Amino acid sequence: MKCLHVIALLGCTASTAQAQTVVRAGEAPAKPGPATNFTGTVSVRTMAEVIAPGQAGAALVTFQPGARTNWHTHPAGQILYVTEGCGWIQEEGSPVIRVCEGVTIHARPGAKHWHGATSSQGMRHLAVTETIDGKPVDWLEPVPASQYHGPAR
Amino acid sequence: MKCLHVIALLGCTASTAQAQTVVRAGEAPAKPGPATNFTGTVSVRTMAEVIAPGQAGAALVTFQPGARTNWHTHPAGQILYVTEGCGWIQEEGSPVIRVCEGVTIHARPGAKHWHGATSSQGMRHLAVTETIDGKPVDWLEPVPASQYHGPAR
Repeated sequence: MKCLHVIALLGCTASTAQAQTVVRAGEAPAKPGPATNFTGTVSVRTMAEVIAPGQAGAALVTFQPGARTNWHTHPAGQILYVTEGCGWIQEEGSPVIRVCEGVTIHARPGAKHWHGATSSQGMRHLAVTETIDGKPVDWLEPVPASQYHGPAR
Repeated sequence: MKCLHVIALLGCTASTAQAQTVVRAGEAPAKPGPATNFTGTVSVRTMAEVIAPGQAGAALVTFQPGARTNWHTHPAGQILYVTEGCGWIQEEGSPVIRVCEGVTIHARPGAKHWHGATSSQGMRHLAVTETIDGKPVDWLEPVPASQYHGPAR
């Protein structure tokens, strides 16, 4: 991650930062979302590391059309903010819903869910996830095409 | 706050929500930022309430040109994501820096800081703030014009 510290010579280890960190989206390196946890083409840019006693970190996650997370849960929940495009999200037992730029989603602690692009349009969201006992997420099974596409919508 | 639950009949009390909450920016009511904590015209839309064991909540905060927070600290820090426009932010003892759409700022726990619009351009950011022992923020003194404008920039 390239960080522009207010005092630039301090280096860039957010967990021990001596000044607030300022990260521009285009400067944080994009890492591919691994196939073990995602379907399709996904990139993840870490924007804010956890700094204790805070437990929240942030990442910008970009999904190409058709891409989505596996099903997963977060022990302390997750706040998503859609910054570009439109996507689909689903909590287990509920219908898929469409979300576009400017929408905030709060996934409950422990709720099984997935999120991603629509089949025809990419989506980027800021994901703010809290880490409890060193764990931000429990990854589960992929979302198969039949479930992803679901009923016509 | 108007919430569109996945199961809409569940009602809208995020702290006891039975399904993930989805809030569109234009639907959350805008409340004025009080003059005790802000200078100028500021509106605050709550987008995500804290749900234990999570400790993070989110708000979209819109600053008209010239508007800014008072100096303040957060016991667990704060993650800001600029969604529109450009603003100025400052941590005590460091220069003012300019931030625009797409920038993420991570203010350290306990660090005294302020944020707001520039003098000529409005700014909106998502503010994700963690609450510890019931407290998300300690408000301090206003940022006077001389400090806000500072050296030419």
